[in-house]
Amino acid sequence: MIIDAKLTKEIASIVGEDNCSTSVADLYTYGFDSSIHHHTPDMVVRPKATSEVSRLVKLASREGIPIVPRGGGTGLCGSAVPIMGGMVMDLTRMNLIKEIRLNDLYCVVQAGVVYDRLNEALAPHKFFFPPSPGSGEACTIGGMVATNASGMRAVKYGATRDYVLGLEVVLADGSVIHVGTNTIKNSSGYQLERFFVGSEGTLGIITEVTLKVAPKPKKAAMVLAAFDRLEDAGSCVSNLISIPLIPSATELMDDICIRAVNKAVKAGLPEVQAVCMIEVDGDPEIVAKELKVVEDVARKSGASTVQISDDSKQMARWTNARKSVMSALSRLGDDLVSVSLADDMAVPISRIPEAVVAFHRIADENHVIVGTYGHAADGNLHTKMLLNPCSEDSWKRGERAVGQIFDAVIQLGGTVTGEHGVGMSKAPYMKKERPDAWGTMLLLKQAMDPKNILNPGKMMQWEGGIIRDLRYPCRDLISK
Amino acid sequence: MIIDAKLTKEIASIVGEDNCSTSVADLYTYGFDSSIHHHTPDMVVRPKATSEVSRLVKLASREGIPIVPRGGGTGLCGSAVPIMGGMVMDLTRMNLIKEIRLNDLYCVVQAGVVYDRLNEALAPHKFFFPPSPGSGEACTIGGMVATNASGMRAVKYGATRDYVLGLEVVLADGSVIHVGTNTIKNSSGYQLERFFVGSEGTLGIITEVTLKVAPKPKKAAMVLAAFDRLEDAGSCVSNLISIPLIPSATELMDDICIRAVNKAVKAGLPEVQAVCMIEVDGDPEIVAKELKVVEDVARKSGASTVQISDDSKQMARWTNARKSVMSALSRLGDDLVSVSLADDMAVPISRIPEAVVAFHRIADENHVIVGTYGHAADGNLHTKMLLNPCSEDSWKRGERAVGQIFDAVIQLGGTVTGEHGVGMSKAPYMKKERPDAWGTMLLLKQAMDPKNILNPGKMMQWEGGIIRDLRYPCRDLISK
Repeated sequence: MIIDAKLTKEIASIVGEDNCSTSVADLYTYGFDSSIHHHTPDMVVRPKATSEVSRLVKLASREGIPIVPRGGGTGLCGSAVPIMGGMVMDLTRMNLIKEIRLNDLYCVVQAGVVYDRLNEALAPHKFFFPPSPGSGEACTIGGMVATNASGMRAVKYGATRDYVLGLEVVLADGSVIHVGTNTIKNSSGYQLERFFVGSEGTLGIITEVTLKVAPKPKKAAMVLAAFDRLEDAGSCVSNLISIPLIPSATELMDDICIRAVNKAVKAGLPEVQAVCMIEVDGDPEIVAKELKVVEDVARKSGASTVQISDDSKQMARWTNARKSVMSALSRLGDDLVSVSLADDMAVPISRIPEAVVAFHRIADENHVIVGTYGHAADGNLHTKMLLNPCSEDSWKRGERAVGQIFDAVIQLGGTVTGEHGVGMSKAPYMKKERPDAWGTMLLLKQAMDPKNILNPGKMMQWEGGIIRDLRYPCRDLISK
Repeated sequence: MIIDAKLTKEIASIVGEDNCSTSVADLYTYGFDSSIHHHTPDMVVRPKATSEVSRLVKLASREGIPIVPRGGGTGLCGSAVPIMGGMVMDLTRMNLIKEIRLNDLYCVVQAGVVYDRLNEALAPHKFFFPPSPGSGEACTIGGMVATNASGMRAVKYGATRDYVLGLEVVLADGSVIHVGTNTIKNSSGYQLERFFVGSEGTLGIITEVTLKVAPKPKKAAMVLAAFDRLEDAGSCVSNLISIPLIPSATELMDDICIRAVNKAVKAGLPEVQAVCMIEVDGDPEIVAKELKVVEDVARKSGASTVQISDDSKQMARWTNARKSVMSALSRLGDDLVSVSLADDMAVPISRIPEAVVAFHRIADENHVIVGTYGHAADGNLHTKMLLNPCSEDSWKRGERAVGQIFDAVIQLGGTVTGEHGVGMSKAPYMKKERPDAWGTMLLLKQAMDPKNILNPGKMMQWEGGIIRDLRYPCRDLISK
């Protein structure tokens, strides 16, 4: 046991007995995030304050114990899975919104604040924190910073990184530093507040975040355009952007996703090759004008039907159909579940049609079903693979298809992860994507965490494949 | 001589004889940037390609020769002054706009491309790269990335850092790496493209930049509001932002700046305590609506006169008046020149009035004249100090005032540099501003540049004061 009785007592003296656990149920549960990976930690700790995080890290540094910070556990690639054991540090008790200073266009929150809670607090003041991750009702601001999370609105509003003004971070030796500023502008030394963005807990533990906020648009409206040819949906997006008209969201769904949501949640979407849900927002006059442009461009790009709505109920139905894709895909085939493997690639926007066509070809060649959807206007595509969890062969075909999808994305000038992070699932492919920058990342990791206690074994350090080292419950069942 | 005949020959074989120089005139000239600092380099090199930069850095690494990358030389705090001698690397020959991919919302440029040239290339396509530095007609994109430059429009459009998608960087050992992506979204490992932003050539030499571009607003219009009380101008800005209405620019000028431009360029501005030039931009309908709101808020905030214009000539006159401040201040008093010392502090937006009042008090107490102006809506303030360059006493009073201004800014929760960088002028105060993060910056510098050849002696490494080690020409003249 890496954490013995004496250490357990010391840890309890820091966070309180109720906030550290070695119960089998807790350890098993905290061995998951929302990815397919799993590994049991030795302890779960739930600090309430930065000072507690600092003391825990000092202890871990002294004893050489891995620490894996964890927000809402909504990550899809294993960033919060304690692959080397040690402590999982659940930060959700650090959930204070400390300051909202709208005159100064910023707010200060603890890492464990949930995305939707922050926006609920900002809404009455007509402001918001724009990145809109699909997991907004559960994911934390700290987790969003740690993965540079975004969502539907990045093409118009940017990703988390564009809003991080300052951070409080606990370093690998337990010292606490403050990086960035409370100002909109900052040229005062290295932009460390952006350096920690996307570092997935491997460089330091983010305990507090100063975020820029933006005025909430007064109105939004949507166009649902149906296309008989997938390529036309892609052209529609490119045609809009080159006007230029930047939609606030452009959600693409292919035929498999359409069928899945129509079956599972009776979404009533047109059963065509692809639909695009295009949202525009802003002042009512602009929304009205842009809606007409979007409708016109969609028709000229080959849309077979175009529906328009600014009715909040109708828009919510469309948005919910889109949000249901991930779960609906698991109910498309009887023995199949939808798994997140190659799940958030991004390509240059104009390469979207080629990417989707390539994914379909790869799916066919490997005899797997792949549903493709995503944020077409920012080049970010999700695929979910439908696999039989109890079939070794199904997993193997899936793994092969994942590799080919990532290769296709790199070939198209894209990246293997646009908004979820690297963790374990994408580590081998990040290395492929970044043959020359990878070494610099490792160098910086070693400088920042010489004892390698901060989320070890992830990103550049991950030596396994995607599924080879997978501890998927069904796999354990099969092997028994 | 740090660079002997043999090395000179080797360097000439890399860049060509015409592109390296040890002539006294060149060395003297390249010893300056636009700051008050000066130090003569041992050689000036002007590479044309990344491969040449790489070979030069390899040579410098082998021989332990300092390299100071330089763009347009418009920096105001000594970032491009070769304080330890060695090579100044002028990157302005690397001035290719390599790609403009508007469908994909990005462009790729070499580091030496001038800001205005890039925007001239983007304009016909109705796109632009928004940060608008005052030195836009001369400063380079590489320099802007290296200092996180911005300008008038940051409150609405962000700073350079918010547009950097990818970089090509030559590291301290001469190896070339590519960081970031060609995609709008990226969660693929450490955000190194943002890490190099603001590093002022101390972590690597930026040779190529992939920038996000934005749709150019269709129309702009301006309000010129005159205030008899400086505090009212500050309240006006806060009142606008909390509506929320985010202007595209809000330029504040105090009475000293107003007098200076009225005298020097006959700007014809109202001679009051403060003027605010508030620009709004976007679709014509929105501009018209927002202009009315701005006018109303300005009056309610106590403006004594309010002028409105969407006439391009009138707007250019106002903008030029603002742009003339720096040079006009040098012509306000007979024996005085305007110097950039405490020149681009930023405070939380609502603290602007307190900051300006503090600057005036500090100026009075030290018997120096300080003109204050700046980008009020993003909290970024410029002060220029009017000093007698031939008076030791005048410099000493100036130095004391600078220290007090920086202290006041830190006290107000601000930063000593919002958009120009640290270089030498602000190094002692960055240390004061960042007592706990400073060590991490130094650690990363040491990891990235173990031989300390990349712009050595700057930022965290600067041991001098602001003026103590100053090689200002007049100072040399006095000492003779």
